[in-house]
Amino acid sequence: MTPPTSPYAEFLDLSGEIADLGAAQAVLSWDQETYMPPGGQQARGRQMATLSGLIHRKFTSDEMGNLLERLSGPEPPDEIDQCLAVERAMWEYRRAVRVPEELVRETARAQSDSVACWTEARPRNDFRKWLPHLERILDLERRRADCLKDPGQDRYDALLQGYERGATGAEIAAVFDRLRDRVVALVRRIGASDYPVSTSCLDREFDVDRQWDFGLEVLKAMGFDLGKGRQDKSAHPFTTGFHPTDVRLTTRLNARTFATGLFATMHEGGHGLYDQGIRIEDARTPLGGAISLGIHESQSRMWENLVGRSLPFWRGFYSRLQNAFPAELGSVALDVFYRAINRVEPSLIRVEADEVTYSLHIILRFEIERAMLAGELDPAGLPDVWRDKMREYLGLDVPDDKDGCMQDIHWAWGLIGYFPTYTLGNLYSVQFFEQAQSDIPDLDARIEAGELQRLTEWLREKIHRVGLRRLAGELCTDITGRPLEAEPYVRYLETKFGQIYRLA
Amino acid sequence: MTPPTSPYAEFLDLSGEIADLGAAQAVLSWDQETYMPPGGQQARGRQMATLSGLIHRKFTSDEMGNLLERLSGPEPPDEIDQCLAVERAMWEYRRAVRVPEELVRETARAQSDSVACWTEARPRNDFRKWLPHLERILDLERRRADCLKDPGQDRYDALLQGYERGATGAEIAAVFDRLRDRVVALVRRIGASDYPVSTSCLDREFDVDRQWDFGLEVLKAMGFDLGKGRQDKSAHPFTTGFHPTDVRLTTRLNARTFATGLFATMHEGGHGLYDQGIRIEDARTPLGGAISLGIHESQSRMWENLVGRSLPFWRGFYSRLQNAFPAELGSVALDVFYRAINRVEPSLIRVEADEVTYSLHIILRFEIERAMLAGELDPAGLPDVWRDKMREYLGLDVPDDKDGCMQDIHWAWGLIGYFPTYTLGNLYSVQFFEQAQSDIPDLDARIEAGELQRLTEWLREKIHRVGLRRLAGELCTDITGRPLEAEPYVRYLETKFGQIYRLA
Repeated sequence: MTPPTSPYAEFLDLSGEIADLGAAQAVLSWDQETYMPPGGQQARGRQMATLSGLIHRKFTSDEMGNLLERLSGPEPPDEIDQCLAVERAMWEYRRAVRVPEELVRETARAQSDSVACWTEARPRNDFRKWLPHLERILDLERRRADCLKDPGQDRYDALLQGYERGATGAEIAAVFDRLRDRVVALVRRIGASDYPVSTSCLDREFDVDRQWDFGLEVLKAMGFDLGKGRQDKSAHPFTTGFHPTDVRLTTRLNARTFATGLFATMHEGGHGLYDQGIRIEDARTPLGGAISLGIHESQSRMWENLVGRSLPFWRGFYSRLQNAFPAELGSVALDVFYRAINRVEPSLIRVEADEVTYSLHIILRFEIERAMLAGELDPAGLPDVWRDKMREYLGLDVPDDKDGCMQDIHWAWGLIGYFPTYTLGNLYSVQFFEQAQSDIPDLDARIEAGELQRLTEWLREKIHRVGLRRLAGELCTDITGRPLEAEPYVRYLETKFGQIYRLA
Repeated sequence: MTPPTSPYAEFLDLSGEIADLGAAQAVLSWDQETYMPPGGQQARGRQMATLSGLIHRKFTSDEMGNLLERLSGPEPPDEIDQCLAVERAMWEYRRAVRVPEELVRETARAQSDSVACWTEARPRNDFRKWLPHLERILDLERRRADCLKDPGQDRYDALLQGYERGATGAEIAAVFDRLRDRVVALVRRIGASDYPVSTSCLDREFDVDRQWDFGLEVLKAMGFDLGKGRQDKSAHPFTTGFHPTDVRLTTRLNARTFATGLFATMHEGGHGLYDQGIRIEDARTPLGGAISLGIHESQSRMWENLVGRSLPFWRGFYSRLQNAFPAELGSVALDVFYRAINRVEPSLIRVEADEVTYSLHIILRFEIERAMLAGELDPAGLPDVWRDKMREYLGLDVPDDKDGCMQDIHWAWGLIGYFPTYTLGNLYSVQFFEQAQSDIPDLDARIEAGELQRLTEWLREKIHRVGLRRLAGELCTDITGRPLEAEPYVRYLETKFGQIYRLA
């Protein structure tokens, strides 16, 4: 090893080292969710804490600060990619050093206490018990936002940047307002349809081994490279990547809920394709990552919904599925199956929501967390506001807090500003997919022929290989010529579900 | 977190952090051997290198050096355990800082080149091609030994300390000489026996799933805690521990070689019990490890051979095995099975050797590596010396270098001084086991009744919970009142195989 010859080379060495430690942390986390014996929990927690502390110290070190200062100064690197890498790292670095260590530690403690309390209080439906933790979390997130925010920036926006750089709460609210009104109307029309959808064809036992094999067949057809990744089982499906050459998906299979397992596989497969699609030469550099949570989610939602719950996909794959489950589906017509996997039914639980109602769960959370952070909504009033909004948006009565405002772990974990990225993913997915359909005129026919990789190639070129060169909003304009909008997604939902439910 | 209040507390914090990084490295390594997709190889190599570099830098840092100096000075810690922890760390630290970074890097490069060449040259039987790498390895190990050795210490001994602290080549040679002569004689008598052993009862297909289940049943009976560990499959069985609460074993199962799989499971189970038996309060400290490779191997060999290949064990477990494989073993008598798993047959390959001939493979390697390091044997002459010794000790003609002097990866990896620890493990295992039999008069009966944990408890108390408080030689004297000796092991072999082969 010859010593680095330029500040940029030194910067790359240090960034690479930090990336390696991040990858090690991700391996430990993957192992924790997949194979770790239960007794290993406490020791693993300490190992993970040691790694995060080390990563934080290295990333906020004087060495990193000095290199970044130098590289951002009057003599920037020659290449545009190098300038971008420095900008991305500088942006992260500034955010990291703005929050004092003491606040970081206090927040970690508060989150850990909050999750512990929530885990106990939720099954007992005891919102009052968890309330002080929520208040503490909100207070700490406000303090963190005050450290992070640029002059004049809104607190919520300062937090949002950690998940979706460049987005603002006001912009999202404008899009979500339009989306909410149209989706609420659509849900009502569907509820009043004379052609209800039955899911009885799915209400049987589907052998989990054959589910597993079918899921792998679809993953391979999507272009997920099993020589550079794998799928395992875990309690909650997730995707993690240690490098574009080693991407891990998990799924959850249950004989009684066939659709859940397959769509989890396709959803995580979408994330996994993105992670595998990062350029090798960007890996271990500040450009070798995903643009934002919203863009990551656009990939998973596209494969799960726009492909996986579409008619062209099943025109091609349904006979294969029938071959895998001849007794269960051999006599079920494609149309009956297609309608069953697309049933719309307002429900209490976000993670079980269908494609149409899902966004309403998110919009509700976005509105509430923004109001709580701004101090406009007293957390003590959360259960009531939750009930009111669930009735207004979904027409449902919320019987308890367990399946109401306490259902998600996100707020308990201190994640404020995270929820909207799920729906941003839906919105982007449709804007991108419509562009793909326009760029590839026979895309539907290709999908029907099982040639899913035609779409993968397009995503590789337009999104995956971009790495972190663009922000989410820029990427959207680059690809579609338009900013983030509600209209394409609403139109997509109205068309698809208008046909399924034969709405006028 | 309040700041540490004493140098010893600071030392523990730093040691704990290094232990956590070591555990992370072990998780990455375990994953690499079990689940990592093939494409992840290169990135994993870099991640591992980053972690080892970091561990080395932290362990050899001025911070560690200053703490150790202070704690080894005129005001040592109050507790004996604290003094021991400091001594253990100081000993490791001195070895680590004695080797210049440049030599460490050059050695790593040479090892990597050597393994790459060996991997290609071995199947092509091309010793000449690998020879320059072996010469370079030996040269670098000599230089490393010169850095490491205490005044007047032998080079081989300086390297040996890295695997077996406190042992010397001369002492091992004295024991091995006696062992070799007696075992060579025993092998000859066995070869001339009128009662040869047939392994035809094992020459059938054993369903691998049932092998897996039976192996787990034995592991549980041994006391291996599957809530604090697990077993997986890998190309080469191994054991690794991230903490006493998370110990991972692997095994390799093949329908045609039932015995190999079960004895691999018991062997690794012995290692795993040791790792699980380390006191929780010692974990993450310099006392929370195994004493030496020889002592670790004494645990695996005890379970594999002294228990797993013994009559008392099979008197208890054979009917269970017959229940698992009724078609294959239902009509095979216990005695026939017992003799089959104990057949002695000189063979070319160390890892396939039986209990009697195994030590001869090790002694041959020990003699050769010691002579090569001392410059008494020119590496170019290795194949010839190998052939001569194989003929002399085992009566075999070595047809090629692939299954001769190139069969093991150890020398290619630069491991000089490692081989003897395998046989030290055998020797210690018998000395310890005889003491256990004396301390627990009904031990054989307990084993026969399937109560293997009586032995585990004894090992916990006498060995596992000692952690690194004693060196190998001290432990042997503590437990048995005698130093390392050849006689108990030879007597054990002569008695056991004298009965099996009905020797006069």
